[in-house]
Amino acid sequence: MKIGTERAGNEEQSHTSRYLAQFLVSARLDEMPEALIHEAKRSILNGFATAFAGCSDAAMERLVKTLSGFSGRPQASLTGRKERFDVLTAAFLNAVSTNVFDFDDTHPGTIIHPTAPVSPALFALGEHRPFSGRRLLEAFILGVELECRLGNAISPGHYKRGWHITSTCGVFGAAAATGKILGLDKERMVWALGNASAQSSGLVETLGSMAKSVGVGNAARNGLSAALMAGNGVEGPGRPLEGERGFLKVTSDSPNLPALVENLGSNWELSRNTYKPYPCGVVLNPVIEACLEIANAPDFDASRIQSVTISGHSLLRERADRPTVETGREAQVSAQHAAAVCLLYKASSLNEFSDEAVNRKDVLWLRKKVKVVVDDAAMVGAAHVIAVYTDDTVLEATVKHARGDAEYPLSDRDIEEKLRDLIVYGRSGVDPEPIIDAIWRLDQIKDVSEIMALARL
Amino acid sequence: MKIGTERAGNEEQSHTSRYLAQFLVSARLDEMPEALIHEAKRSILNGFATAFAGCSDAAMERLVKTLSGFSGRPQASLTGRKERFDVLTAAFLNAVSTNVFDFDDTHPGTIIHPTAPVSPALFALGEHRPFSGRRLLEAFILGVELECRLGNAISPGHYKRGWHITSTCGVFGAAAATGKILGLDKERMVWALGNASAQSSGLVETLGSMAKSVGVGNAARNGLSAALMAGNGVEGPGRPLEGERGFLKVTSDSPNLPALVENLGSNWELSRNTYKPYPCGVVLNPVIEACLEIANAPDFDASRIQSVTISGHSLLRERADRPTVETGREAQVSAQHAAAVCLLYKASSLNEFSDEAVNRKDVLWLRKKVKVVVDDAAMVGAAHVIAVYTDDTVLEATVKHARGDAEYPLSDRDIEEKLRDLIVYGRSGVDPEPIIDAIWRLDQIKDVSEIMALARL
Repeated sequence: MKIGTERAGNEEQSHTSRYLAQFLVSARLDEMPEALIHEAKRSILNGFATAFAGCSDAAMERLVKTLSGFSGRPQASLTGRKERFDVLTAAFLNAVSTNVFDFDDTHPGTIIHPTAPVSPALFALGEHRPFSGRRLLEAFILGVELECRLGNAISPGHYKRGWHITSTCGVFGAAAATGKILGLDKERMVWALGNASAQSSGLVETLGSMAKSVGVGNAARNGLSAALMAGNGVEGPGRPLEGERGFLKVTSDSPNLPALVENLGSNWELSRNTYKPYPCGVVLNPVIEACLEIANAPDFDASRIQSVTISGHSLLRERADRPTVETGREAQVSAQHAAAVCLLYKASSLNEFSDEAVNRKDVLWLRKKVKVVVDDAAMVGAAHVIAVYTDDTVLEATVKHARGDAEYPLSDRDIEEKLRDLIVYGRSGVDPEPIIDAIWRLDQIKDVSEIMALARL
Repeated sequence: MKIGTERAGNEEQSHTSRYLAQFLVSARLDEMPEALIHEAKRSILNGFATAFAGCSDAAMERLVKTLSGFSGRPQASLTGRKERFDVLTAAFLNAVSTNVFDFDDTHPGTIIHPTAPVSPALFALGEHRPFSGRRLLEAFILGVELECRLGNAISPGHYKRGWHITSTCGVFGAAAATGKILGLDKERMVWALGNASAQSSGLVETLGSMAKSVGVGNAARNGLSAALMAGNGVEGPGRPLEGERGFLKVTSDSPNLPALVENLGSNWELSRNTYKPYPCGVVLNPVIEACLEIANAPDFDASRIQSVTISGHSLLRERADRPTVETGREAQVSAQHAAAVCLLYKASSLNEFSDEAVNRKDVLWLRKKVKVVVDDAAMVGAAHVIAVYTDDTVLEATVKHARGDAEYPLSDRDIEEKLRDLIVYGRSGVDPEPIIDAIWRLDQIKDVSEIMALARL
C-alpha cells in the first residue's frame, strides 16, 4: 500500500481504520523530517514541565490517594512524586498532572492537548518494557498524528456538542502509540483502535472541575490498555472509526473522512503543535497580553477602572465568558479573571490562577467590571481590550497573535525556562537540568526509563 | 425534599443531578416493596448464572491475561474462576463474564442489561469492605433505577445513534450503587455522577466483537472508581447530567428530563426487568420460538427448505439482520443464524451459538436461505417466520410474546435452572445449590463476601 498519496482514494475512506493501522504499523522514524522529531522533543519537554507543576495539585493528591489502594506492582513512576504504581495507573496519573492546569500543549483548530494522553502512556510502558528514545519518538509522533487527525475529522462540531476532545481523541492516540511500541501487526492495531473506541469518553461539562482530569487520565490509561488487550488477542470491530456506528459517526454529525488520510506521512499534525506561555485556556492568551500591555503603560492605575470590555471571536465568549469563579481551575477559563489579575498584578502565572487568588477582594472587585463581547470580524486568537477609568479615560490594546500561537511560538529556551519555573511551582525539588538535557538527547537514549528515573522522587 | 411526587417541578428538572443524588442518598430498603426486593434477587441470580457461563469465554481469558500483569492486591474474586484481583479489576472482569454472551437481563424499551455493570461493582466492593445483603439489595435497586431512568430519558435516539447503552448508562448505575454503599453525602453523590460522566463510553459498532466487553467491564470499573474518587474529594461539575454540555444533551438530541424524576421512589425500573431464556440479542427471542415451533412440527425436514423469511419490527432488522457471521459472538445478534440452528437442531442454547456452530456446513447452507424483512405493523417483541420447502410447501409460525418477555417472564425456578445449566456450560465445577440458596436469602446475610466465596474457585 502506498502511504502519503496526496489524495486518498475511495478504498482508503471505506476502510479508514485498516488504512490508518497499516500506516501506523509501517511508518518509521528514519523517514520523518528532523524538524518533526525536534518538535516531538519540544512537546515532550513541555509535557514534563506542566506535569512538574500539576504533580502536587489537589486533584492529583486525591486521585493518587484513591488509586493507591487498588494499584498493582510498583512498575512505573510519577513525575515529581515518590509513589510507584502499576503501568496503567501511572499512565493515568501522569496524564492528569500533565493536563490538570491546562498549561500543556495545544493543537490549533481542534484545541486538543496532544501530549497528555500519549507521552505518559509511553513513558509508563517504557519503565515496564524498556525501549529506546528513538522508538519513543516514533511512537509519540504517530500517536499524536492519529489523535489530531481524528480531531480534525470531527471538528468543530464534536467539541461544540460537548465532547472533551483531548480525552475522546487522546485514547486513540495513546492506543496507537503504545500499540506501535508493542509491535502490533495491522489487524491487531485495528483491534487496538476498536478497544479504544469502546473507551472513548470525556465531557466539556466537566471542565473547571477535577472530573476533567478523570477523563484525561483515562485517555492515557485506556489507550494503553486497549493496545495491551489487542496484543493479547482481544478482538475489536473491523471498522471502529468509519463504521456506521463507529466513533466518527456517533460523535460527529458530519465527519470529514478525507481529513484522516490525506497527505498521511507527508503532512504531520505534530509540526503544528503550540505551547502555552500562560496557564489558561489558549483562547485567553491574547486577552492576557492585551491586559498586560495596558497594565504596563506608564502611570496605569487599576483602582481607577470603572469597566473593562474584551472583544474577540465567538469562541472566546463561548469558552471563557465566566464572570463568577470559585476555584483556580475555573479561573483558568475565565476571561474576567484573567483580565482582572493581569491589570492588578501585571502577571499571569499559576500563582494568579490559584484558589487563593480567586477570592482576593481586589480581584473580586475588578472581575465584576469585565465584560466579554463578540466581534464578528475578529480572528480566532486575537483580542481587543478597552479599559475605561471612572473619569472616562480610555485605555486600549489589541493583540493579533499572542505568544505561544503558531505564528509566535515559544523558543526551545522558553520551554526550558517554563520547565524550570514549573518545578519551582510544584515544589518537587527535582533538578531540571538533567531532564532538559536528556529530552534534547532523546534520540540517543537507549532506555527511556532513564528519563523517569530523573523525573521522579 | 419530597421524594416520589407524581410530577416533578421545574426545580427538579433544572437541578436534576442534585435531585437524583438526594434521592439516592436518602432512599431506604425499608420503604421499598417486597416484590421489588425479590426482583433484585432474581436479577442478581440471573447475573451470576450468565457469569458462570461467561467466565471461561475466550474474551474473558484474554482480558484476565492482560489485566493480571497490572492488578493490585488480591482483594476480590471472580465468579467461576480462581484468580484474585484488586477491587476495580474484579468489577471489570465480573461485568465482562456476566454480559459477554448477552445472555443477561434486559430492561425493556432501553435494551439496557442493567445487572452487569452494577452487581459486579457491588460484590467486588463487598469483598474489600464487608457490608450486609440488605445494603447490597438497596444499593443495587438504586443503581439500576438511575441507570435505567437515564436510559429512558435518552431512548431511543441514543442507542440508535450508536451508543452501547448498557455501557454508557451502566457507569452511572455502578457509581450510584457503590456511592450508596460508601455513604456519600448529596454533594459527593453529584461528584460521583460527574466522575462517571467523564468516563461514560461504549459504541454499538463494537457489538459482535470482544471490544464490546471492554466497554461493559469499564462501566462497572469506572462507576466504582467514580464513587471512590468522589469519596476522596475528587470534585465534579454541579450538573453532570442536565448541564448544557452534560451527559444528556451531549449523547441525545432530545433528552426527556421528566423521565428521570417523575414518580421517583414509587415507580421502580427494576420491577420491569426481564431475563433471557436464550443466549441471544433479545430481539431474537420471538424468532427463535417461531422457528422452534416450525421445527417441532410432525415430519418437519430442514433439508427440504428453499427459503426462510422472518418479518418483524424495524428494530429486529436493525439489530439482527446479519447474514454473514464468523464468530459465536456475532451469531448471537444474527437472525439468520438463530433461524438456521433452531430449524436444524431444534435447540437454542450456548452450544448453538459457539464459534464452532457458526462454521458447520449445514448451518452455512441454511443461513444463506434466511431473509429478514420489516413489517410496519409488527410490534417490538413479535416475529413471524415463513419457511418454504423446495416443493413450495409453506410452514409458518407467529410469536407475539416470547418467553422471557415482560408478559411471559421466567419463573424463579427457570432462573435457578438457568444457573445450573450455565455452570455446566462454563465448566467451573462450582456447586450451584449454596449460591442459589444464599441469593434467595440475601436480605438475611450479614456479609456479602460470603456469596463470592461460594461463587469463586
